[in-house]
Amino acid sequence: MSFDPGGGRIQASVPQLSAADAAETIGPDDIILVSGFGGVGYPKAVTPAIADRDDELSLTVISGGGVGATVDDALVEAGKLARRFPFQTRPAVRGAINDGTVAFHDRHISRVADEVRLGDFGDPNVAIVEAIAVGDGWLVPSTSIGNTPAFVEAADRLIIEVNRSQPLELARVHDVYTRALPPDRGPIPLSTPTGRIGGPEIEFDPDTLVGVVETEQTDTPYEFRDPTAVDAAIADNLQEFLEAEIRRNPMLERSVQLQFGVGSMGNALMGALSAIDFGDRTVRYFGEVFQDGLLDSLDSGLLSGASATSLALSDAGQQQLFDDIDRYADQVVLRPADISNNPALIERFGVVGINSAVEVDIYGNANATHIQGTRVVNGIGGGGDFNRNCRLGIIALPSTAADGEISRIVPMTPHVDHTEHDLSVVVTEHGVADLRGSSPRERADRLTAIADPAYRPRLERYAERAGTAGGHTPHDLDSAFDSTL
Amino acid sequence: MSFDPGGGRIQASVPQLSAADAAETIGPDDIILVSGFGGVGYPKAVTPAIADRDDELSLTVISGGGVGATVDDALVEAGKLARRFPFQTRPAVRGAINDGTVAFHDRHISRVADEVRLGDFGDPNVAIVEAIAVGDGWLVPSTSIGNTPAFVEAADRLIIEVNRSQPLELARVHDVYTRALPPDRGPIPLSTPTGRIGGPEIEFDPDTLVGVVETEQTDTPYEFRDPTAVDAAIADNLQEFLEAEIRRNPMLERSVQLQFGVGSMGNALMGALSAIDFGDRTVRYFGEVFQDGLLDSLDSGLLSGASATSLALSDAGQQQLFDDIDRYADQVVLRPADISNNPALIERFGVVGINSAVEVDIYGNANATHIQGTRVVNGIGGGGDFNRNCRLGIIALPSTAADGEISRIVPMTPHVDHTEHDLSVVVTEHGVADLRGSSPRERADRLTAIADPAYRPRLERYAERAGTAGGHTPHDLDSAFDSTL
Repeated sequence: MSFDPGGGRIQASVPQLSAADAAETIGPDDIILVSGFGGVGYPKAVTPAIADRDDELSLTVISGGGVGATVDDALVEAGKLARRFPFQTRPAVRGAINDGTVAFHDRHISRVADEVRLGDFGDPNVAIVEAIAVGDGWLVPSTSIGNTPAFVEAADRLIIEVNRSQPLELARVHDVYTRALPPDRGPIPLSTPTGRIGGPEIEFDPDTLVGVVETEQTDTPYEFRDPTAVDAAIADNLQEFLEAEIRRNPMLERSVQLQFGVGSMGNALMGALSAIDFGDRTVRYFGEVFQDGLLDSLDSGLLSGASATSLALSDAGQQQLFDDIDRYADQVVLRPADISNNPALIERFGVVGINSAVEVDIYGNANATHIQGTRVVNGIGGGGDFNRNCRLGIIALPSTAADGEISRIVPMTPHVDHTEHDLSVVVTEHGVADLRGSSPRERADRLTAIADPAYRPRLERYAERAGTAGGHTPHDLDSAFDSTL
Repeated sequence: MSFDPGGGRIQASVPQLSAADAAETIGPDDIILVSGFGGVGYPKAVTPAIADRDDELSLTVISGGGVGATVDDALVEAGKLARRFPFQTRPAVRGAINDGTVAFHDRHISRVADEVRLGDFGDPNVAIVEAIAVGDGWLVPSTSIGNTPAFVEAADRLIIEVNRSQPLELARVHDVYTRALPPDRGPIPLSTPTGRIGGPEIEFDPDTLVGVVETEQTDTPYEFRDPTAVDAAIADNLQEFLEAEIRRNPMLERSVQLQFGVGSMGNALMGALSAIDFGDRTVRYFGEVFQDGLLDSLDSGLLSGASATSLALSDAGQQQLFDDIDRYADQVVLRPADISNNPALIERFGVVGINSAVEVDIYGNANATHIQGTRVVNGIGGGGDFNRNCRLGIIALPSTAADGEISRIVPMTPHVDHTEHDLSVVVTEHGVADLRGSSPRERADRLTAIADPAYRPRLERYAERAGTAGGHTPHDLDSAFDSTL
């Protein structure tokens, strides 16, 4: 670990300014790149100060992943947010996106660093990033890394928030490795899922630095709901499947690499890990977020280490980690999002990915983002990176939504984020549908069998109705979305 | 190049047998792995002999990619084919799949080698592969490599067809590199798209060898239709887009890596390459099939080299290549399909992928496989490997099908193979829709603008009807598939 805070969080040579002064440097239609992933490590002072300006702004904001209210809520409530990429979790901005007043598109997390550097969203004007310390040409990120290395490289100007509430010991978890652009970049030289190939600092061109703003506001991270009885039943089915698969699959003979999706379902499944009998296998986490559910598995020694791009912990989880950072820092590594979610690493390491979805159709296509094909929830996030590249991609979801009023297993999903070609297995509280090596008709049988019993007759009637006309993947387009039949 | 045929095509120590005797070794429900990709390099004698058996068989056949009539037509016509993966192009087997009498699922090409070795399709019994030469524990493949290395490793038994009609000089194009299984495999050590990291031989365990069957039957490769006026207009639009993009995109500053999809459209676009002004950039092909359209570009020096897994040439193209194999062998390299289509290599090299589709919806989701969401055409093939991992993924397609009776730009596609998150650009004969950095509503405008003018009002009416209810991705599920409104 090369980082030494030495003379404190801010080296004397670095120019400082107020949040309001930093905000005044923003142009009326700037493209702003912000730090933040998993609801932590986002700017807390400059973006609210931009929102407080009394002139009209029409800004584009691009983040690593989910950020806090000081970015999304502040800017959208001030009417200053015009465009937003690649992921969001805040109700305020989601409402504006669904109203069509904010232009949004969700992108695969692993690609965004390249997409920004290649100019896919235009020429970025300014990066606003949170750090725990800054010096001449370097900064150390805080509770998430996300796309900060690429953002700092791509933006014309750089504003750094140094947050004194974030512990300096976070430097010990960071492993910053920056990739060159195609076509002249080599493979990522990571030989084990929890290895290290970089250091804590992100380098930047000092000529781009507008200045440093000091803050003290803590993250306002996700709150996870307590696991439900349905979560527990899903975890039981997942456990039974994984224990059998581990004995069979040569990829899992000596070690198991796991990833869980972001959110309460993922957190509940992470928390249920300790029930699984992994025998004497080494178990590692190679995912995009590190959530509360993993802390106990690290404490018990079940997990030998964890790789992610964000410490997406609750307040309590953050406290637990910060209180014992010396010990956790040896086991937890944070990477840039284009490394944590990299397709090559996911397939090389044989990661077993467990993600959720809004709904899955009877042929194994999954919708992870849209209600009724129309209203976006969050965004695809890293789900596509993992489902597509895992050799064992599992979707775990309750069989129903809205207190049983809606089946999450449907004849046809009106939005597809993960195709039938990507998923291996679907788990609900009613069982496991192993889709590997199966035809569409066989898939329909297996997925109907894990639907809520109340909805199975409807799915069977659909398969029968669609099947009369034949076809490889029988559909009746006139009634595919009709839930009354 | 280490290969020396030395004592001829078949070393004396290798057991030989007749096709009929080889066919008799097949069990009633065997899982058979066959060579072949792009309609070349498939078995020609043993599979017809299996079809000729007069007992009942219920076989599973897994190939690299498209094979010839001697595999698919023979077995399906004999009623001996029960299951088929991961790709097919023959009308006989396609009919049986759409009738539901053959179980099929199309898989991403890059994954199949791993999926077979990990047992996703069950435990493979026998591999039947075509070679140009065989010795003690090694064989040299013929006109395609496909999944032959993984198949030979995974199957309990091995039957080799040595085809004397295939030129021995093919050994000079092969670059066989075999990956270990996850999790303990390193990065693929290929530093340039047309580099070499292996040799011509595929190694096998001599204990698995049932025997060698001699054949002389030539490949019956694809026939490409002549380019149409619509193809030419699409090529013109693609040219204009690429010439502008090359000047803008830092990824394309010094070299351009191209991939074209399989088939007549891809072949026509390859053939139109010579019109594009690439300046002094190095231009390479990094794709899955090498088709006729590339020969002229190699001859003219426009292309400095080409990497693929199959020489999917017409009869005339094969003749041209074989006649001048000494020269072409320095420029063309064939790899296993899990290397030619590898996600990590496609994204490292910044490949620009140009693939086709059955239809694209107004939000940028593409259906590449199903008519009316129901009847399968071929399979996804490598389209997902390239679209998903290219930093510039282009879908090129005519704006209509069936002599203008059907629009290929639709409100909602009832089958999704490539999601809105994957594609960058769509090209028709009416223009280019650059989808990068755009929201769904903006995408709908851009894609409607390149639809056939006769269908634009219908698409606009749909967007208006769907838009009344709001939402990020406006849809009206009651009329999404109704082409009368």
